[in-house]
Amino acid sequence: MFSKETYINRRNELKNKINNGIVLITGNNDAPMNYKSNTYHFRQDSTFLYFFGIDLQNLAGVIDIDNNEEILFGDDYTIDDIIWMGPQTSLKDKAAGAGIEKTRPFAELFEYIRDAAAKKRTIHFTPPYRGENIMLLADLLNIHHREVEKNASLELTKACIDLRSIKEPCEIEEMERHMSTAWEMHTTAMRMARPGISEQEITGAIEGVSMSGGGMVSFPVICSVRGETLHNHYHGNTLKEGDLLLTDAGSESPLHYATDHTRTTPVSGKFTETQRQVYQIVLDANNKAREATRPGVPYRDVHLLACKVIASGLKELGLMKGDPDEAVNAGAHALFMPHGLGHMIGLDVHDMEDYDDTLVGYDDEIKRSSQFGLAALRLGRRLQPGFTITNEPGIYFIPALIDNWKAENKFPQFLNYEKIEAFKGFGGIRLEDDILVTGDGCRILGERIPITIEEVEAIAGKGAVK
Amino acid sequence: MFSKETYINRRNELKNKINNGIVLITGNNDAPMNYKSNTYHFRQDSTFLYFFGIDLQNLAGVIDIDNNEEILFGDDYTIDDIIWMGPQTSLKDKAAGAGIEKTRPFAELFEYIRDAAAKKRTIHFTPPYRGENIMLLADLLNIHHREVEKNASLELTKACIDLRSIKEPCEIEEMERHMSTAWEMHTTAMRMARPGISEQEITGAIEGVSMSGGGMVSFPVICSVRGETLHNHYHGNTLKEGDLLLTDAGSESPLHYATDHTRTTPVSGKFTETQRQVYQIVLDANNKAREATRPGVPYRDVHLLACKVIASGLKELGLMKGDPDEAVNAGAHALFMPHGLGHMIGLDVHDMEDYDDTLVGYDDEIKRSSQFGLAALRLGRRLQPGFTITNEPGIYFIPALIDNWKAENKFPQFLNYEKIEAFKGFGGIRLEDDILVTGDGCRILGERIPITIEEVEAIAGKGAVK
Repeated sequence: MFSKETYINRRNELKNKINNGIVLITGNNDAPMNYKSNTYHFRQDSTFLYFFGIDLQNLAGVIDIDNNEEILFGDDYTIDDIIWMGPQTSLKDKAAGAGIEKTRPFAELFEYIRDAAAKKRTIHFTPPYRGENIMLLADLLNIHHREVEKNASLELTKACIDLRSIKEPCEIEEMERHMSTAWEMHTTAMRMARPGISEQEITGAIEGVSMSGGGMVSFPVICSVRGETLHNHYHGNTLKEGDLLLTDAGSESPLHYATDHTRTTPVSGKFTETQRQVYQIVLDANNKAREATRPGVPYRDVHLLACKVIASGLKELGLMKGDPDEAVNAGAHALFMPHGLGHMIGLDVHDMEDYDDTLVGYDDEIKRSSQFGLAALRLGRRLQPGFTITNEPGIYFIPALIDNWKAENKFPQFLNYEKIEAFKGFGGIRLEDDILVTGDGCRILGERIPITIEEVEAIAGKGAVK
Repeated sequence: MFSKETYINRRNELKNKINNGIVLITGNNDAPMNYKSNTYHFRQDSTFLYFFGIDLQNLAGVIDIDNNEEILFGDDYTIDDIIWMGPQTSLKDKAAGAGIEKTRPFAELFEYIRDAAAKKRTIHFTPPYRGENIMLLADLLNIHHREVEKNASLELTKACIDLRSIKEPCEIEEMERHMSTAWEMHTTAMRMARPGISEQEITGAIEGVSMSGGGMVSFPVICSVRGETLHNHYHGNTLKEGDLLLTDAGSESPLHYATDHTRTTPVSGKFTETQRQVYQIVLDANNKAREATRPGVPYRDVHLLACKVIASGLKELGLMKGDPDEAVNAGAHALFMPHGLGHMIGLDVHDMEDYDDTLVGYDDEIKRSSQFGLAALRLGRRLQPGFTITNEPGIYFIPALIDNWKAENKFPQFLNYEKIEAFKGFGGIRLEDDILVTGDGCRILGERIPITIEEVEAIAGKGAVK
């Protein structure tokens, strides 16, 4: 946990942003895998972590705005719990660590909320995303489970986004400290990439590196020679000469801050000439995007800049034609890069996505586009110092999408389908860093994971270091 | 998947056991971690895997007993899905692989169930354990989410237990094939155990071995120098000279059959004299229990036999006194072994625990005891050929439990509290194998993981093999 003052300050800031009523923040419980008591790794709710910091099951925090009162609802452990789970800190002590004086048994939360509801007080909660918490809220509020989501508080959600968007020094420190595990994960994958090894074996190894480094993976690992499949969680392929291995993976720090990086490695140890050309375009897009990243700039514009670098590069390769700016404005480049340049990252890999990614990434000034490609950009609004974001351009050759567009003859003025056809087995390349927006620009968090062609070829397939 | 005949046969067997109505088997979906689209490793529901074998999200299978009709409800993938998740097999082909001809869109399941309910037909389902499926069933049946569990079908549950208790040759083969990964996990932990390394690092490494071997861990890893805490998922300790590292870990095979083993390793590389004495008692209990394991014998009796070996051994060490048989009948040994000797294992590590562990492990003849210790035994009924079970005796010195019993002066005729006090920092030892009940006895599944004192000391701390 951070210092108790950190949590006290955050709750005070929140109180200043909410007019009245009660803020109810339910923690997560263990998530059942194949039966109730066989559970996945426990992952506390991020909002609960942010305001209370206690990384344990079966808790709920209440902030009474009207009476300036804070209560932690939970239960102390019984002797049976201690036999099975070991000695435990008391609820009182846990609460004190977060600067909270009042604790009550969890069961009393029902009466507490019922009383508040009877007095017509507003009960603020953020949109729940786990079935168990949706049912808990339904029971607490005495409404149908299908009514819960629509009763979430926009006021609370916006206040949380305001606070969490700007990372505090202690958060940046925690994130930066964990970047060494990200480095270790990715260089392990790069070193293991050689013909004959399976994607599954590399995936297992890097999940192990993450766990050994202190936490589970921050999202399902993508580690595939079919890198053109954007969220490919199939790891059944065996790597072979000429393949490109795309690894998009991250780790949670001990306090549950995410890392998120992508690297693309030539399985043969060296890129082919064509791979090298496409790789360099993606790397240029990544570097130019970072150079343009600074406070006050809408990230949508940085996204479009990266897309234009890609369109220009692909024009040089003969895959695109016409004016690159016009091509990007029309959305023709999205055949090759159908996703956004990046997103906020913090306690969640797509930070605060449980709240609503449009509320997080857009505002009254910068609205989300509905254009294919640009619509997938999660962060469009103006950058501010303290934002932590990803920078992840990519170029992909997705056979199904190419067939689709070609059949519709989309953007014939910008796309050279004949040449594109020849790239159908190429796969995909993505290069992603985690970036902090500073007072006057930005910087990469942690030591940059090998990314230039020379750096990558120097370690590709060189074997895991033990 | 197994052959489609396997699934056809299983469903036919099920039809023979259910009188009438409709069997509804809902598959699992992705389980949200910290927001809806950031999910844990997908784990299909075991009942769905058993009868349909399809390891994918968003499916439900229906077996209409009255009309001998089977339908798979699900949706085909859209072009957007293919961009993000890669090319996919059609629903028709997936169904055909499980020997099912009829498929319908998932949304039509609502109408289908509504019609059946309107005709007062019985809709059988097993008890759900994930919030999302509880809400789905509530919506399908048009009942409150709190009403779902009590509407689960005892008839279906018992039929599933009957079928799944006896493992088929293809299941045994699948389980046995994956035992090499279990071997690898445990020998890795034993080799890594040395002063200065952290529990977290070893845990990460063995989770990685599991993933590399084809599947996620079958339950949260226990890897702790505080082995007396039975389900210790805290991995924050650093190993030091004289510690015992207890590792209880398993892996899921590609078809999701579990392994589950425990080994206890001396961190110094050699056991102390006292550790050696206690270890040998546990090993004797394990071996004698296995020798007594054969068809027709109640596993409760095997459990009690193991407890008596432990009570006799502890009497020799001066920690217990009086007649060991009487001590075990009274439950005095449970201070040292408060858990059961073992449980069924198969598609779940505690096989079929979602159904109800008393229904799985007991019957009209052998009833579950309420005595502390024996009550925790999950499998008490008579063994049958084809049962796969665990054999996991242990001896623990749990400070809180010792204090508790001593304060109440429990079983002074059997317990020598003064001597027991001296063992308070000892920790715990558990030794667990996976066993198949054969026609005339039993055998250990796979090559036995090093377990004798000599075998363990030969590899403890010798470093991971790469």
